[in-house]
Amino acid sequence: MAARKVSTENTGIGWIGTGVMGASMCMHLVKAGYRTTVYTRTRNKAEGLIEAGAAWAKSPKDAASKSDVLFTIVGFPHDVREVYFGDDGIFEGLRKGSILVDMTTTEPSLAEEIYAAAKKAGASAIDAPVSGGDIGAREGKLSIMAGGDRKTFDAVMPLFELMGKNIVYQGGAGSGQHTKMCNQIMAASLMVGMCETLLYAYKSGLDPETMLKSVGRGAAACWMLDNLAPRVLKRDFSPGFYVEHFIKDMGIALKESDRMNLVLPGLSLVRQLYVAARAQGHGRKGTQALMLALERMSGIQSEVKKI
Amino acid sequence: MAARKVSTENTGIGWIGTGVMGASMCMHLVKAGYRTTVYTRTRNKAEGLIEAGAAWAKSPKDAASKSDVLFTIVGFPHDVREVYFGDDGIFEGLRKGSILVDMTTTEPSLAEEIYAAAKKAGASAIDAPVSGGDIGAREGKLSIMAGGDRKTFDAVMPLFELMGKNIVYQGGAGSGQHTKMCNQIMAASLMVGMCETLLYAYKSGLDPETMLKSVGRGAAACWMLDNLAPRVLKRDFSPGFYVEHFIKDMGIALKESDRMNLVLPGLSLVRQLYVAARAQGHGRKGTQALMLALERMSGIQSEVKKI
Repeated sequence: MAARKVSTENTGIGWIGTGVMGASMCMHLVKAGYRTTVYTRTRNKAEGLIEAGAAWAKSPKDAASKSDVLFTIVGFPHDVREVYFGDDGIFEGLRKGSILVDMTTTEPSLAEEIYAAAKKAGASAIDAPVSGGDIGAREGKLSIMAGGDRKTFDAVMPLFELMGKNIVYQGGAGSGQHTKMCNQIMAASLMVGMCETLLYAYKSGLDPETMLKSVGRGAAACWMLDNLAPRVLKRDFSPGFYVEHFIKDMGIALKESDRMNLVLPGLSLVRQLYVAARAQGHGRKGTQALMLALERMSGIQSEVKKI
Repeated sequence: MAARKVSTENTGIGWIGTGVMGASMCMHLVKAGYRTTVYTRTRNKAEGLIEAGAAWAKSPKDAASKSDVLFTIVGFPHDVREVYFGDDGIFEGLRKGSILVDMTTTEPSLAEEIYAAAKKAGASAIDAPVSGGDIGAREGKLSIMAGGDRKTFDAVMPLFELMGKNIVYQGGAGSGQHTKMCNQIMAASLMVGMCETLLYAYKSGLDPETMLKSVGRGAAACWMLDNLAPRVLKRDFSPGFYVEHFIKDMGIALKESDRMNLVLPGLSLVRQLYVAARAQGHGRKGTQALMLALERMSGIQSEVKKI
């Protein structure tokens, strides 16, 4: 299987996890004509895909038994573990020669574990977390960072190309996850920097939008100031990416860093600030809701509209 | 003076402070044909400008007495205070109707003080700190963020246009400085994010350049990853902007925040990490030398070339 490229004629696809991201990503494969079997914990979240032609699997095991390439994108590392190694899990139904692709952001060590278990079962595995949020998923413009064997990566490339634009092979098993951790470490600092910058502008009496015309075009220029800052200024805290998922990701990065004897003081602080945001009831808001926790810390009312 | 625009016929320029930034910025005015008088603490730093046609002033007072528009760009707030309010300072030689433009990054309250003193003396003042570093100064591509009276800003616009590309009027006196503080708050988070991201990539065995192909193009995309990260990977810690000046700027932002009852935990941490960098002897290196302090914290040898 890994030797030849996938095609709509020779490849049965399995898909587990049809949340905001997963449903959009899977839909690209279904629409491209791939015979697709889906499983997800809450069946009604797969209705759109089933209407579009996907078949329903009654368990991860069932999905695995019908797939040449099986994708997973679920919530937390324990969900990944359950789906792969649990009762009626993927490894109970796995076909020889098939390819497993976990697109959940999860622990690099778990990615290595899945890789080893797949190899032992005569299959292969790729870890391929993404960034780009719900919009990137819908528009097929995700950034996909992949780890595993190069030839397996090459084999599934046509499928990745249906979902993403910036698809980079990062190295052996776990490298995709490690790269995603790098992305989240950078994003964490960007978020706190953006919120503190907007708060300072507000408190010092600047017009935040005019301030951004200066700050957003020099050495501090970044995607966040261009794309998330305007949402904060509109007091739009709807989720592109959940606070609680970001806390999970930062936790993985800190756990890995601890293991590697690496001190990341910036990341450590930002995660604590996000825990504050969650503690204040913002876990299911977008990551820009860090602003609310920082406002509260300074005794500013979040009702303040002019920021 | 403020009523009409400057021109090489009707406007004598004064320039105080010819460090790496100031010398390049002043040179654009001299080359445009403005009659320019310069003063700087260490005369040999003005030699290039004098060769290009600028006259030498023996003191800030002397420079002020010969100028319709007088620029200053010196080091620390106490230098600004000395140059404006000290013996033989600007306010001793100030012409009525002249315009003072302080381009040093300094305290917003000091900018307000200069503005008030200028007004009392029948002159006007603009605070106009810049970003873009030595390269921006040399190429006339600085970002200039200005505060003061709008009509004074408009009057000196032709001079700003010789030095910068992104020139934004931010509001009343001190607004330029406050905007620069916003820039430095964002930059502080970006720096720690960039260094921690590169450190994680290194320790987890990723190829940092391949990692950047994924991380540098999504939600974490920023000028810093594009421009400073490659210098860190080459172990180039030469100064575009000094660690010790960055510490000064962050100190001003924290002092202002303290006064405004604003909590900036991210900025506070980053400044401490920069103090560590300075304590370890990196004060006159570029801001990317934060990397060296973070490496040391994790017991990584800075001799490590492959990062």
